Amino acid sequence: MKKITFAALLLLSFFGFSQSGSELWLSYTKIENSDHRTQLAAAINAIVLASDSERSQLAAQELQQALESLLDKKIPILQQAQPIPGSIFLNIKSNDTALGKDGFIILRKEGKQRIEAFNDLGLLYGVFAFARELQEIGAAPFEKREIPKVRYRMLNHWDNANGTVERGYAGASLWKWFELPYRLDPRYEQYARANAAIGINAVSLNNVNASSRFLTAEYLEKIKALADLFRPYGIQVFISVNFRSPRTLGGLTTSDPLDPDVRQWWKEKTAEIHRYIPDFGGFLVKANSEGEPGPQDYGRTHAEGANMLAAALENYPGIVIWRAFVYKADPNGDRFKEAYEQFKPLDGQFDEKVIVQVKNGPIDFMPREPFHPMFGAFKKTALAVEFQITQEYLGHSTHWVYLAPMFKECLDADTYATGKGATVGKVIDGSVYPTPISLMAGVANTGSDANFTGHPMAQSNWYAFGRLAWDHTLSAAQLAKEWTAISLSQKKEVIQKISSLMLNSHATYVNYTYPLGLHHMMGEGHHFGPQPWLDKSQRPDWTSTYYHRAAASGIGFDRTGKMSNALALYAPEVQNTWKDPQQCDLNYLLWFHHLPWDYPLSTGRMLWEELMHRYYQGVEEVEQMRLAWAQLEEEIEEETFNNVAARLQIQKREALWWRDSGYLYFKTFSNMPLPEGLTPPTRSLEEVKALEKIYHLR
Amino acid sequence: MKKITFAALLLLSFFGFSQSGSELWLSYTKIENSDHRTQLAAAINAIVLASDSERSQLAAQELQQALESLLDKKIPILQQAQPIPGSIFLNIKSNDTALGKDGFIILRKEGKQRIEAFNDLGLLYGVFAFARELQEIGAAPFEKREIPKVRYRMLNHWDNANGTVERGYAGASLWKWFELPYRLDPRYEQYARANAAIGINAVSLNNVNASSRFLTAEYLEKIKALADLFRPYGIQVFISVNFRSPRTLGGLTTSDPLDPDVRQWWKEKTAEIHRYIPDFGGFLVKANSEGEPGPQDYGRTHAEGANMLAAALENYPGIVIWRAFVYKADPNGDRFKEAYEQFKPLDGQFDEKVIVQVKNGPIDFMPREPFHPMFGAFKKTALAVEFQITQEYLGHSTHWVYLAPMFKECLDADTYATGKGATVGKVIDGSVYPTPISLMAGVANTGSDANFTGHPMAQSNWYAFGRLAWDHTLSAAQLAKEWTAISLSQKKEVIQKISSLMLNSHATYVNYTYPLGLHHMMGEGHHFGPQPWLDKSQRPDWTSTYYHRAAASGIGFDRTGKMSNALALYAPEVQNTWKDPQQCDLNYLLWFHHLPWDYPLSTGRMLWEELMHRYYQGVEEVEQMRLAWAQLEEEIEEETFNNVAARLQIQKREALWWRDSGYLYFKTFSNMPLPEGLTPPTRSLEEVKALEKIYHLR
Repeated sequence: MKKITFAALLLLSFFGFSQSGSELWLSYTKIENSDHRTQLAAAINAIVLASDSERSQLAAQELQQALESLLDKKIPILQQAQPIPGSIFLNIKSNDTALGKDGFIILRKEGKQRIEAFNDLGLLYGVFAFARELQEIGAAPFEKREIPKVRYRMLNHWDNANGTVERGYAGASLWKWFELPYRLDPRYEQYARANAAIGINAVSLNNVNASSRFLTAEYLEKIKALADLFRPYGIQVFISVNFRSPRTLGGLTTSDPLDPDVRQWWKEKTAEIHRYIPDFGGFLVKANSEGEPGPQDYGRTHAEGANMLAAALENYPGIVIWRAFVYKADPNGDRFKEAYEQFKPLDGQFDEKVIVQVKNGPIDFMPREPFHPMFGAFKKTALAVEFQITQEYLGHSTHWVYLAPMFKECLDADTYATGKGATVGKVIDGSVYPTPISLMAGVANTGSDANFTGHPMAQSNWYAFGRLAWDHTLSAAQLAKEWTAISLSQKKEVIQKISSLMLNSHATYVNYTYPLGLHHMMGEGHHFGPQPWLDKSQRPDWTSTYYHRAAASGIGFDRTGKMSNALALYAPEVQNTWKDPQQCDLNYLLWFHHLPWDYPLSTGRMLWEELMHRYYQGVEEVEQMRLAWAQLEEEIEEETFNNVAARLQIQKREALWWRDSGYLYFKTFSNMPLPEGLTPPTRSLEEVKALEKIYHLR
Repeated sequence: MKKITFAALLLLSFFGFSQSGSELWLSYTKIENSDHRTQLAAAINAIVLASDSERSQLAAQELQQALESLLDKKIPILQQAQPIPGSIFLNIKSNDTALGKDGFIILRKEGKQRIEAFNDLGLLYGVFAFARELQEIGAAPFEKREIPKVRYRMLNHWDNANGTVERGYAGASLWKWFELPYRLDPRYEQYARANAAIGINAVSLNNVNASSRFLTAEYLEKIKALADLFRPYGIQVFISVNFRSPRTLGGLTTSDPLDPDVRQWWKEKTAEIHRYIPDFGGFLVKANSEGEPGPQDYGRTHAEGANMLAAALENYPGIVIWRAFVYKADPNGDRFKEAYEQFKPLDGQFDEKVIVQVKNGPIDFMPREPFHPMFGAFKKTALAVEFQITQEYLGHSTHWVYLAPMFKECLDADTYATGKGATVGKVIDGSVYPTPISLMAGVANTGSDANFTGHPMAQSNWYAFGRLAWDHTLSAAQLAKEWTAISLSQKKEVIQKISSLMLNSHATYVNYTYPLGLHHMMGEGHHFGPQPWLDKSQRPDWTSTYYHRAAASGIGFDRTGKMSNALALYAPEVQNTWKDPQQCDLNYLLWFHHLPWDYPLSTGRMLWEELMHRYYQGVEEVEQMRLAWAQLEEEIEEETFNNVAARLQIQKREALWWRDSGYLYFKTFSNMPLPEGLTPPTRSLEEVKALEKIYHLR
């Protein structure tokens, strides 16, 4: 076996940040500032490990690898109970139970650097935090004590058994089912390390549009191989289940959750799963949603369905994650209200092993949504928030959109459930209403591409999601800086420039796609590019016109008391911020109001003018991003630089497509000219329509 | 822009053969034998280039890179008309027109090494051949003059617009359509170089089940970006077209090939394509096959359809490749004869710009098929052979099957069209009946996996296909040695062991899946694993029982005069070798004969016994492969070693699945015991059936 030696790997890292991006935020690029580096190297002589568990060893080795790369110095690991001068002391502090399973302390005491935890997983998290700060600030980190706010920090993979990824834009699935259980792709471990480094401790492996295949013995053996590999990194595995499995796999005539045979089947299946995976995380379920089977097929409620699975798990620590993404087709209804209305009567009926997973907004991962009205409204049900890291509606893998500002907009939104300050983040972490379970989920943006995420900058969204799941009070700006410093450049001014581009990118995307609170106007099915003219579909709420309601009279969805009154689902304080179109944040205006084209806005422009200005501004901002990035050519590793530069060209082209579609289509209703100073498109409405049609061609 | 320097890349190659396999057969690993290396290094002081074309420069740079890696010595390139002592002289020999566009000469003259060609593409091919032989024999190659036997050496990608690959087992598509035309993935160039290195000069980019999308201006711009990148490597781009495009794209009411508007539409579309790609290769068409549209939809013949496209190309050098893979659903017919019968009346009717592409065998890429009866039978039509490099029916990406012996079995098969020696290879290259076009196509096994092919050993199938397309007289053994020497090891004994495993692997696969000429018994749709019991499908010829016809009376498809008489499609000499079950090669026995279970064979065993012995032997051979590979642990780069070792475990498991299915199912007809010495499976027929069912689960 010809081993590539560790020294050889080090030679690679010498040349700077990872070329392919395959190391994610773990490239541990040598500290360029030689003063900092030599000072640190002189100060650190050993890693002293006072624990002998497998995971503690892993933590020590991770620290060793990080220091060796960062400081260009081989640091020995000593296994002993006491620190020595110049050592970093990794210690299990068995009396500090408040740290829990995941918490850690980094501190200097009596001139010795210590990383301490109650549990060896906390030690691993502490090591990653230590290495991260070392890179970010170029010096040993400040003292800190960290305990995650949320118990389950989770990625949901929408990966299919056939290797495709639903709404995945970075190649095929990471999971090579046909190679498992025997072959473990080396990328699995890189994935696990990267997750552990940001605190992610739970993953569901398969699409919520679930195949029963994953519950067969054949596939449980494969899943076990992944669970075994992930375990040292503190990651628990979940399975998305198809509610009809008792019929398709068990040969039963029903999947009624109250049927004794069905309940017994799930009990036995759950026991079988635990024979493969003793620390199995639990089930994730999309039921009675978009054609998926569920308890309502048998006249039962979501609570009855979820509780049946909870009963199957009663002798195990695992949980049931039940998605609230449900909506029936009603041309006269408002999809905005569906999940709330279906679930509200069930508040208090769910087993304590059940958590209801709610998307951040009431529709479906639109680039900007008001926070979901369920948050704050459920006092007796644990609610999880589900974000989408993969950019289904946010430019797939060709648009640079840093999502942390969007995540934060939701997490920091005040529900006023218990008065001022009852933010969504606090609802989720159980500090508004105490809950036995807390969970934050993100739909993964990972795939088989060498850099895992397709767009190099999309790595930052995975990163920021994980860090926010750990601590939702972190700021989008801090996370942008952090990620850039460990992924792209050590130069302060470069970090500043890039994180500033990141922070503006979401607002820019919204400007050229869905300004002023427009939503759901993407190409049907493929969700690529604009199709605001879509007025016929299998379901009324899959069209665009259902949402924007453009007419000669104006544009927008009236959700005040005059029409759907979805606003009434929110606390009065929230209603007050949105109900008056004169006061409403312009970013949410057309989410709640149908207004005439000439409606005067606080900006001094009428609605039509403001809409057009924002479209044009979005495109202009992309051009500015492109120019700003071009300035960084000397600063960024070549392949990454070129990759982002090329994608910005595509983004520009597609931003123009959105802008021109918006203008050409909406002016057929407004009959108004483009405001002065804006140059009309050189193409026709038919031409932009034809571009979208391409994606329906067989 | 931080460049990774060339010196840095060299450091990598110092550690041996490529870890990820991403360099394919171009890792140019340093010659380990230091005597050879230092001798060569001492003897080579310069590359002298007597041409200044872009492609000549590319050839010189490729040679420089190869020598620098192989010899650990930087060799300068001098641009001048005359060689100097110790130089390798790259020269355009403008008077040797017989070399054609692709041919080259390697020779030593007056103590000087020369690589000469009539065209700069020949020079590039000569450089690759020179570097290859240098690695294979560790010394400067013998003198040689090579001219490819076939004009178009082509890969057919069955890649879809959505990034999936039909029958692809190595991740997603190589082509990132959403990133094109702006971003050129660095892998495109690696792909192009690797193809040029084995002589491949034509690629169709998209699935033959073709989307019209690829003919839109939006996509032609993307295809142009690839064509521009491939051009220096001598690779022409083809597009698979949907015959209905005049309707779907052109808005016409028909796609009738004799309709003037339709003809005009294709003419204009062809002109448009050439504005993007002046050296466009041409069209590849799957028409009236498996639901694809075609000329028969309008009562026209395949010839009328193909000739219409040829007419559109009349002012351009491009060609039309028309697939002969057609078969209608007929429970009383024999799919074996369909293509022959539909195309034979058209012999002589095709335009000279049309070549008819025929699969190697009459059914569909079965692990072993008799050569297609169309070969040799068509005197006035250029025929191409289509092989499948991707392992649709050959174990996907988990079975190690070296396909060159299977390719060779077809290419060397004698059609007796013009008497003895009229092999399929000679039919294809135009030496049996002269044809204006010659073409050999392989359905690519490439994907987004880092090593391009999933199974590391599957690289050898792409390699061998390309080399055979260049010269079909090369032996499978030679190509196995060649590939191993440049991809895995420089040690003679290791090369010997691995190439021996490769050479047996196809026979082994056939043993445990389709012994004695069985065919078409794979899992429906997914084509994974065995399903010999499949007796109902959308079409009779998509079942397994249609082909094996197992009954109490015996097994096999009688294709003699007693039944379908497909044998009569072959020349009498060919018929003679197969028509008598006592004389017939046992590998083809059940392709042509239905025989009783107790039919006595030349092996001394009756049919049932021989069938079982081969199934069991196949599994035993996989176990031997596994053990033999394990012996090579010290010799092979670690990641590749582990990868192959793990896949051999899977192969073993799946071989057992095939064997047990064959035994358990067929004994329900034979009612015979397993021959003495063979251990019965520990599972039931229901259990092996359940394994296949998994792959139909939603």
